[in-house]
Amino acid sequence: MKGLFITFEGVEGAGKSTQAKMLYEYFNNKKIKAILTKEPGGTKTGLKIREILLSHTDEKFTGISELFLYEADRNLHIENVIKPNLEKGINVICDRFIDSTLAYQGYARGLNIELIKQLNNIATNGLKPNITFLIDIPVEEGLKRIKNERNIDRIEKEDIYFHKRLREGFLKIAEEEKERIFVIDGTKDKKEIFKNILNILEKKFTNYLI
Amino acid sequence: MKGLFITFEGVEGAGKSTQAKMLYEYFNNKKIKAILTKEPGGTKTGLKIREILLSHTDEKFTGISELFLYEADRNLHIENVIKPNLEKGINVICDRFIDSTLAYQGYARGLNIELIKQLNNIATNGLKPNITFLIDIPVEEGLKRIKNERNIDRIEKEDIYFHKRLREGFLKIAEEEKERIFVIDGTKDKKEIFKNILNILEKKFTNYLI
Repeated sequence: MKGLFITFEGVEGAGKSTQAKMLYEYFNNKKIKAILTKEPGGTKTGLKIREILLSHTDEKFTGISELFLYEADRNLHIENVIKPNLEKGINVICDRFIDSTLAYQGYARGLNIELIKQLNNIATNGLKPNITFLIDIPVEEGLKRIKNERNIDRIEKEDIYFHKRLREGFLKIAEEEKERIFVIDGTKDKKEIFKNILNILEKKFTNYLI
Repeated sequence: MKGLFITFEGVEGAGKSTQAKMLYEYFNNKKIKAILTKEPGGTKTGLKIREILLSHTDEKFTGISELFLYEADRNLHIENVIKPNLEKGINVICDRFIDSTLAYQGYARGLNIELIKQLNNIATNGLKPNITFLIDIPVEEGLKRIKNERNIDRIEKEDIYFHKRLREGFLKIAEEEKERIFVIDGTKDKKEIFKNILNILEKKFTNYLI
């Protein structure tokens, strides 16, 4: 793979989408080729899958089916968007990826962690990000932010304990993969956060970015 | 489980949906409680998944994502429809189930058979049909029938070799699970086919049905 694969992770309202966008704009200004994409919903079919995942019905929506839908979306995203761009030397910035599935479906919803790792691996065919930024903020602050900013969808209605398990899950995943995942303090000003991200990127991938 | 779980399998145009419907009507006439359902699309969310599976896009639709979508549909179907009915003592007749996934995604499309068995098992949590009828006809005859009767969708446009691998796959699966799967000659008249099915059912489940 010739491009860099950079992912952003975090709890609701952490500011990861903002940071992903700032990085994309930074690359654009520097004339560094990059695309900005997200999961779920990084392909046309993936958008339909995303709709299903975020929609309300009176049916029991099981954790297992949720997991399968995320992995279907991921595999389409990788084969249609992520891999073809990386192969052309275009950097791929992705808002949520495998770690979100592990944190949400595993640590927060309680599905078997090994099962999720296995399905992640099937969906990605082993492709991992070169670097992942985990934007970390206290759960209460994230929820406060999204209540002010957005319509709350199915996932965001979950209780505070869910979000606490989620944050702890993300931090545990980061602890297990220190080489790949960098924990960023998300309570700071967004420009300062971005400066931290850029510092880490420049240290780790000098040859790629300059 | 108090109800019987009966599935119908076969290549395109074999007549399995017709036979499933005839069995459902037979149960109705005998005042035997039963529901008729199908995969994919046995739930509201499953219908949306079915739409995705059968729709045309310009994106690469990978075998792995197809598999994940089928398994998501299956898990929702089991938890919302199949299990609750079986638990109430209502027989469940299902048009396509785990064997279709194994035959289509495995034997016909070439995905790893063990992987599919494993995902089938995750999606069903080990629930298997009490009996399965594989309606078997030569591929050419099945394709001739559907060309006359229906609009051809994405899957039905596949070439004849695909359908040959599919039929061989179904027969191999039946060979491996002789206790559960009964191969029915689908070239006969539909009333005669139904008589064969009924004979087998009555021999195997006398206590349930009479």
